[in-house]
Amino acid sequence: MRDDAATLTPAPGHDLVLTADAIVAGVHYFPEDPPASIARKALGVNLSDIAAKGAVPRGFLLTLALPEDWTEAWLAGFAEGLGAASASFGCPLLGGDTVRAAGPALIGVTAIGEVPTGGIVRRRTARIGDRICVSGTIGDAALGLQLRLSPEAGWARGLDPESEAHLLDRYLHPQPRLRLAPALRRFATAAMDVSDGLAGDLARMLAGEGRSAVVDAARVPLSPAAARALEREPALLDTALTGGDDYEILCTVPEADLDAFRREAATAGVPVAAIGTVVAGGEPPAFETERGRRVFAAGAFSHF
Amino acid sequence: MRDDAATLTPAPGHDLVLTADAIVAGVHYFPEDPPASIARKALGVNLSDIAAKGAVPRGFLLTLALPEDWTEAWLAGFAEGLGAASASFGCPLLGGDTVRAAGPALIGVTAIGEVPTGGIVRRRTARIGDRICVSGTIGDAALGLQLRLSPEAGWARGLDPESEAHLLDRYLHPQPRLRLAPALRRFATAAMDVSDGLAGDLARMLAGEGRSAVVDAARVPLSPAAARALEREPALLDTALTGGDDYEILCTVPEADLDAFRREAATAGVPVAAIGTVVAGGEPPAFETERGRRVFAAGAFSHF
Repeated sequence: MRDDAATLTPAPGHDLVLTADAIVAGVHYFPEDPPASIARKALGVNLSDIAAKGAVPRGFLLTLALPEDWTEAWLAGFAEGLGAASASFGCPLLGGDTVRAAGPALIGVTAIGEVPTGGIVRRRTARIGDRICVSGTIGDAALGLQLRLSPEAGWARGLDPESEAHLLDRYLHPQPRLRLAPALRRFATAAMDVSDGLAGDLARMLAGEGRSAVVDAARVPLSPAAARALEREPALLDTALTGGDDYEILCTVPEADLDAFRREAATAGVPVAAIGTVVAGGEPPAFETERGRRVFAAGAFSHF
Repeated sequence: MRDDAATLTPAPGHDLVLTADAIVAGVHYFPEDPPASIARKALGVNLSDIAAKGAVPRGFLLTLALPEDWTEAWLAGFAEGLGAASASFGCPLLGGDTVRAAGPALIGVTAIGEVPTGGIVRRRTARIGDRICVSGTIGDAALGLQLRLSPEAGWARGLDPESEAHLLDRYLHPQPRLRLAPALRRFATAAMDVSDGLAGDLARMLAGEGRSAVVDAARVPLSPAAARALEREPALLDTALTGGDDYEILCTVPEADLDAFRREAATAGVPVAAIGTVVAGGEPPAFETERGRRVFAAGAFSHF
């Protein structure tokens, strides 16, 4: 650090977008995870918020609380992973603070992005009739977490190694959907990232605005690995729909713009799927499944 | 929170200034301190950095890690104190994150200020021959901390109640010197806040730049309370010069501007004292005292 503070100025005609999220050992990651992965996750989950707002990363500040048993090797791995993630996301470290605390490690990040003036994509501005879209695939990280927590579960034992590796990796290495930001700014009426589970985050997107949603659960995109897990244990559908740590983008797009949005997203290398529709109403979103309509209680998900 | 991220745009012709500092229970404050005081301190220590850079506060983001034994009453007191501090400092809460952690409470703040473009006052830019100035009084907070840690020490027993209250308050309630920012921008060649002790912070200001300092210890401004404590125990001079948590401003000013700087500071209601001079050299700053020249080892101070 060359100084006690950094300066930052948005490009002319741009606003800065700010967000802060912390991850804690034993809550948001396993203490034994590789420190480079932990660093990447801490930055990635914040840049997922930046992407969902239609913004481009400009930089971040770090608050690192180290437990009493920290080691030089851990810190070196963390710093190396943070540097690599910072470079790959195009998001430089602007400042921060390191403290020692007699508790679990905590990594707090404040991320700063940039959007054209007034261009931020809001969370609560979905309109009735809009189509609900998600990027990528849903549920992988939650299934990866279940593999970590319950490796002896029936569905987990004997899952093919490739699927297992995919699910574990999605939990460990969230990929912020930075390349989707321009298409969100152009087409989305509302957006947020899926960090606390699709069902709960969709409910938060619509709550208090007189809006609800009908989702066709069969259209929720699953990876081949998640599909294989659900073949072995159909009850895992709930885990996929309510589990956290996807870090995909949830957004609403007017019906008339849906094809254009999907084309622009595909050009950016991000698959998006339309999974439902915004409807009038105050109740939580309804998920239509083969076995009937499911409504998930809000706030059911916590990280461990 | 109405959304997952906030937007912020500097006024035309201005840069944003960003800084992040965290305080931890049992390290930077006593867990039993009033929660409103803890909240005020978390914001105040960050705004002290903002002021030292010549900036005006624009907003802050909060990362709050709550211990497992948190209570509604504590959190309500914290929120009330944070709201009052935010209002009194003119610095709105822009966003943040609350997590639970199986350890001590941690309050991380990222503060954002604003300066005219290119106007940030840097830390490492002091020039040989500049006068070294500090705002307010030095050492009160460190003596207040000693009163908390060693109330049975000889000097502490029988200290008059008014002095005791002053020293304890300076530890608990740092006052960021926001009103000094315009004078710093106009006159200071370098500035930082005194958070880790005058001797250590002055060393950090000059280290690696081929500059050192000669300080007249008798000119380091002491409050009446600190002076009374030092009368009772002269060895506390070291505590005053090396102890942390002053949150005063340390800056360098060209000799020719010293009177104008002091006048503008006084007009802003902030007393400043010239305590020494920047000289060429690579050694740590020297403090001339009645008992000879003292040089303090860098990095001697830690908060508890």
